[in-house]
Amino acid sequence: MSDASPRAVPAKIAVLGSGSWGTTFAKVLADASPATHVALWSRRAEVAVEITERHRNSRYLGDTRLPGNVTASDDVAAVLADSALVILAVPAQTLRGQLPAWRASIPENAVVVSLMKGLEVGTDARMSEVIAEELALPADRIAVLSGPNLALEIAREEPTASVVACPDHGTAAWIAAACTASYFRPYTSTDVIGVEIGGIVKNVIALAVGICEGRSMGDNTKASVITRGLAETTRLAVALGGRPETMAGLAGMGDLIATCSSALSRNHTAGRLLGQGLTLDQVTVRMNQTAEGIKSARAVLDSATKLDVDMPITAAVVAVLQGQLAVDDLGARLLARNLKPEGDPAQ
Amino acid sequence: MSDASPRAVPAKIAVLGSGSWGTTFAKVLADASPATHVALWSRRAEVAVEITERHRNSRYLGDTRLPGNVTASDDVAAVLADSALVILAVPAQTLRGQLPAWRASIPENAVVVSLMKGLEVGTDARMSEVIAEELALPADRIAVLSGPNLALEIAREEPTASVVACPDHGTAAWIAAACTASYFRPYTSTDVIGVEIGGIVKNVIALAVGICEGRSMGDNTKASVITRGLAETTRLAVALGGRPETMAGLAGMGDLIATCSSALSRNHTAGRLLGQGLTLDQVTVRMNQTAEGIKSARAVLDSATKLDVDMPITAAVVAVLQGQLAVDDLGARLLARNLKPEGDPAQ
Repeated sequence: MSDASPRAVPAKIAVLGSGSWGTTFAKVLADASPATHVALWSRRAEVAVEITERHRNSRYLGDTRLPGNVTASDDVAAVLADSALVILAVPAQTLRGQLPAWRASIPENAVVVSLMKGLEVGTDARMSEVIAEELALPADRIAVLSGPNLALEIAREEPTASVVACPDHGTAAWIAAACTASYFRPYTSTDVIGVEIGGIVKNVIALAVGICEGRSMGDNTKASVITRGLAETTRLAVALGGRPETMAGLAGMGDLIATCSSALSRNHTAGRLLGQGLTLDQVTVRMNQTAEGIKSARAVLDSATKLDVDMPITAAVVAVLQGQLAVDDLGARLLARNLKPEGDPAQ
Repeated sequence: MSDASPRAVPAKIAVLGSGSWGTTFAKVLADASPATHVALWSRRAEVAVEITERHRNSRYLGDTRLPGNVTASDDVAAVLADSALVILAVPAQTLRGQLPAWRASIPENAVVVSLMKGLEVGTDARMSEVIAEELALPADRIAVLSGPNLALEIAREEPTASVVACPDHGTAAWIAAACTASYFRPYTSTDVIGVEIGGIVKNVIALAVGICEGRSMGDNTKASVITRGLAETTRLAVALGGRPETMAGLAGMGDLIATCSSALSRNHTAGRLLGQGLTLDQVTVRMNQTAEGIKSARAVLDSATKLDVDMPITAAVVAVLQGQLAVDDLGARLLARNLKPEGDPAQ
């Protein structure tokens, strides 16, 4: 598994999870390598039929046409059979419960790639850690992919960059080659922790930015919260063993800005609704699902507390979610009290 | 001028330049300290009359009411008389030509603060350098203020943070105290170079982001360009003697995000019009002025070239402005060819 012996793109790749990101990434893989069979697992048979027969996943991707080398099935063993690369794209909080049933069907030596962004509630585990524990895989067979990757834009083939990270750089490069399409450019990294933490905490910061927008604060406030939000994300990543330069790159700053800019982000939207005065329950009903940042926020704060890392924005979001801080007080609190002086030795 | 002997807020402060930022900052100073007389110099007598008598600068700030302790005059000597703090907010490229006429009227020991964002065309000088040369002032009597500071949002009293930098930290703290209002929170720094470079290069990056938007690229592309744009801005700032942590803060990343997010930014708007296919001349006519980033882009690239700093986004913007690169090719060029691998030792 070194740079000296590049492996060929796999003849078959499995993608487990047919939500908007899993389905879109199946399209990326299929466009990257028309000779590869991309097999998508869908929990629901009718979705699998629509994907295989009509080349559509209309619930998530509207009219986007999927390439002919994407098929789908609700039979996970059939999807996993002979797949050298296994992509996981299921809801973060459901992952641990599903892995035991999949374990026996994952081919020997297959590499498992997480597209998921969340910390497990209760254990504070990253998705790569859940995979390592439940599948008993060594670190060099687990990778993660994250970046400024709004799925609907990629489905429309708008130019997008991303980062694929694995402790084994040759494996990261092999995965990157398998998903390089004309509109999708993956860079490589060995910093799995940094790439994962960037993808997790940005959802919490996007809630804070959404709340500020819901209170009609402007771009000055929003830019300050994003800037200070990346600073606290970087502190957590470094305390966990990640690298600061990862956080200054596409999987840190890039993903944070894309999420906080976009009307397509669920976390951003959830924050805006909270800022407009809806309760957490009302937001969940209105959105027909719970935004991942709402689930991960408490776990992020718990991790930070254990490591003695100061995360004032995350703490404020958790306080809002728990009903201990009014949305009206969040923006002022972030700007007026919790911001430390800029990093200046003279200060 | 040490932290041990804090100076009182000045009884009179001069602000030279009554555009949107100069006028808005006069309001901030006046709101910060109702006992201070804020004297605003306007080139045109009718604007001065409107400000003093009607407490409005309707051309730039619409209906915003200026506090009673702001007055304006077209007599620069009267404005400067007895002012311990002199704020400069004139168009960057006009500064050097105006300073000799003002020099004799600037009170002895006054501190001069630049709100201007631009590199001087021809000399590549920062505004603090132009001030030092033309006024023969020592570095500890020159300060700069910059941050995510869209003037119209501050005029509406939306919560905003900023950074004031001076080599003498006590002077920076004194200026910060003089402009701390309920809606405006300045942090202090001693990194004049970093704060100035952040404010200059962000205009060039905003042009690139605007061009991508004008070509209907999405938030993924935009976030990647902003992220890589801050990386090249940081390389230049560090090569000039600035500090990386300044670029990760409000005057670097914060200002860049605010400018690239906002429909209020002239540079962002100019880029969008270029992206939609207008020529540089057409953009200048449409906007009734030349965006500062268009003037500074070449000077930024010249500085980078002299210092052997790689700035691919700035180079692409200059190529577009000079008609050597089609706007259609900019986004693809930035994502596909000019981006270096993420900062990863294993790469």
